[in-house]
Amino acid sequence: MKPVKVGLLGLGTVGGGTFNVLRRNAEEIERRAGRGIEITYAAAREYDSDTVPGIQNIRVSDDAFAVVDDPDIDIVVELIGGYEPARELVLRAIANGKHVVTANKALIATHGNEIFAAAQKKGVMVAFEAAVAGGMPIIKAVREGLAANRIDWIAGIINGTGNFILTEMRDKGRDFADVLAEAQALGYAEADPTFDVEGIDAAHKLCILGSLAFGIPLQFDKVYTEGISKITREDVTFAEQLGYRIKHLGVTRRTPAGVELRVHPTLIPEKRLIANVDGVMNAVLVQADAVGPTLYYGAGAGAEPTASAVVADLVDVTRTLTADPENRVPHLAFQPDALSDLPILPMDDVETAYYLRLCAADRPGVMADVARILGDGGISIEAVIQKEPPEGEEKVAVILLTRRVREKQMNAAISQIEALDSIEGAVTRIRVEHLGSE
Amino acid sequence: MKPVKVGLLGLGTVGGGTFNVLRRNAEEIERRAGRGIEITYAAAREYDSDTVPGIQNIRVSDDAFAVVDDPDIDIVVELIGGYEPARELVLRAIANGKHVVTANKALIATHGNEIFAAAQKKGVMVAFEAAVAGGMPIIKAVREGLAANRIDWIAGIINGTGNFILTEMRDKGRDFADVLAEAQALGYAEADPTFDVEGIDAAHKLCILGSLAFGIPLQFDKVYTEGISKITREDVTFAEQLGYRIKHLGVTRRTPAGVELRVHPTLIPEKRLIANVDGVMNAVLVQADAVGPTLYYGAGAGAEPTASAVVADLVDVTRTLTADPENRVPHLAFQPDALSDLPILPMDDVETAYYLRLCAADRPGVMADVARILGDGGISIEAVIQKEPPEGEEKVAVILLTRRVREKQMNAAISQIEALDSIEGAVTRIRVEHLGSE
Repeated sequence: MKPVKVGLLGLGTVGGGTFNVLRRNAEEIERRAGRGIEITYAAAREYDSDTVPGIQNIRVSDDAFAVVDDPDIDIVVELIGGYEPARELVLRAIANGKHVVTANKALIATHGNEIFAAAQKKGVMVAFEAAVAGGMPIIKAVREGLAANRIDWIAGIINGTGNFILTEMRDKGRDFADVLAEAQALGYAEADPTFDVEGIDAAHKLCILGSLAFGIPLQFDKVYTEGISKITREDVTFAEQLGYRIKHLGVTRRTPAGVELRVHPTLIPEKRLIANVDGVMNAVLVQADAVGPTLYYGAGAGAEPTASAVVADLVDVTRTLTADPENRVPHLAFQPDALSDLPILPMDDVETAYYLRLCAADRPGVMADVARILGDGGISIEAVIQKEPPEGEEKVAVILLTRRVREKQMNAAISQIEALDSIEGAVTRIRVEHLGSE
Repeated sequence: MKPVKVGLLGLGTVGGGTFNVLRRNAEEIERRAGRGIEITYAAAREYDSDTVPGIQNIRVSDDAFAVVDDPDIDIVVELIGGYEPARELVLRAIANGKHVVTANKALIATHGNEIFAAAQKKGVMVAFEAAVAGGMPIIKAVREGLAANRIDWIAGIINGTGNFILTEMRDKGRDFADVLAEAQALGYAEADPTFDVEGIDAAHKLCILGSLAFGIPLQFDKVYTEGISKITREDVTFAEQLGYRIKHLGVTRRTPAGVELRVHPTLIPEKRLIANVDGVMNAVLVQADAVGPTLYYGAGAGAEPTASAVVADLVDVTRTLTADPENRVPHLAFQPDALSDLPILPMDDVETAYYLRLCAADRPGVMADVARILGDGGISIEAVIQKEPPEGEEKVAVILLTRRVREKQMNAAISQIEALDSIEGAVTRIRVEHLGSE
């Protein structure tokens, strides 16, 4: 059987990694796929040919549309990233009857509905395993491996930069800004770290996971997103004293009222496996009705981990090149005509437990006021730590752990607490997920 | 499209779970598969109809061959277990042109080559995700998700009973026999616990994983198997003092000389995620060249976790019912004509680090003798613990941690140490796997 011909858009980190993995493991991959998979045409404005040995043996154009329009190309791999021209290129590839593999989470999260509809109409596949958690096959696990289950929730550490920063803060007692600067120097974090530390990158991935889990259209604009830039080293320490770790989690959950989609810093009991996922590693915990909890762990980024997922998609597409479109794995795990219109739950209606840190005057009655506000709001207190003020200081730090309550009630209670004369500044609030039954 | 008709062999724990999951999640599953999947005929000698509500609506025979021979059945699900008549039933289903889904690790590990060859010839699929680690989609991950990679090694906690026993021994300082008795009372361990605690069950699963990872035929008779029944509570404690946990691991690794296939108690650094997989849970760690390490965690047994994998296979088979056989995922990850003849490495040639425990006379020169024997054998010592003897005792426990060395050299050294006058009884030897680069 003739090799499948692949057109590669982008020769940056992931593009180069994909070229190298396909070349290095060509024989192993052909043994698995039953057919060779060859990149015969690539597009890049500029690239470092030293990082992609063998690139001189294939055609390279600076015009990505030339690759997408080449009638010899069976599958287009889009590794340019960003919204445009990635969207236009992918839609043009589909219009040309080509299958597409992409690692572009921003593109899928924001334009996936349009892209999948075009692909469905044209009878071609769009594969995007690399868009979530790098090489870890989490899309395959959720979409195929757990096909028997009603999925209850998914919680994931799906941004390596953020996890690296939180890990360093805990292990070394460092400040956020200090670790971020190091992460930038090490190349883990971009010069503009907003996408990573403010949770936008995680929100893209979470949006995709939520659609796969619950069979809903992609709705990126409804994801609640809160970053880690306000987490202090004190919070990390207090969490530790309470037996918790702080992680930047993406959580999507099905409730009778709708689907939760939220990214925010979260305390997790330290005994949970996922609480021990450190450094730049990613992990996704899936709770489903038949199988129970399953966890998937691996590198969430990097040239070859991401290439691993891109090439796995190429193998999948290659295997089904001759199959009926109706019998392929649907893009969002469910058939397009079976997508549900379950709403996305507003953050106000989400229920979690909370970690609160207040700065209070060291005088009688303060705790009583706070406790009364929480009690009136229907909020139960699970634990309290009060740090004695240092000599000469008149403010004490009070840390409260609450039971589960709706975000709306907690917001109201926090406003009232902040209005107390005896409380200084804003209340620090971090959500707590136990991620288990006990 | 008409629903796919499934014949179910066995209505025990997993059979009942499969019936229940398919029924409970029927709508969700059809949304994923694009087609209904219905059990229309079941076979069981005896069963408790209270545990499978709705069973009265379908035909149930006490003759499994009647189901396998029924021309209306598209897919046969074999959940009887054991070697015969499971083998005969599966081969007859294949001969009848039916696809097969099975959870039977013993059958696949010992008769898989014969079964897959028959299926290949007939153009039908045999799916067996449930045969390894219950509902955790590890076969799909290794076979499809990591298809881009050259896999280096796989190490797994793949027997829940054994892991429960080791966890209890560590957490509560209990003895092996004591915990085993409790596990039997709780129903975690069979009345005859040999398959679990002596590693045979794990060896079946490891044999399958090794074939999937390296594209070699199934060779169960070449798996090295050592149980956990000789692990003492002291070993668990000493391992802890050294910063390790003892786990019953299945390890398969590719070396230039051949493939390692081995099941044995293993020390793992406590900081590794897999060292923290406790109780009846399973976890599999895969090291591959492009993606690096990935870990998969979940319930390895039980009615619904296993049913989750059985039904995922039913969905996969249903999706490809109209596809060419050449384009399906090959049984052993690689095409049948591309299987390699890499040999299985004898245990003698396997290299690991070791934990040794000796009972020595408390007198000068003993450590020097032991150190000389190890040194002459080319074995480096990494750490030593010597426990002072209790008042009136004249024997001391000496614990040694060595660097990596071939098993053959270690066997020779142990024989020499045991021959010393000053050493009492046998040397306890547990292999150490660091499962990481540092």
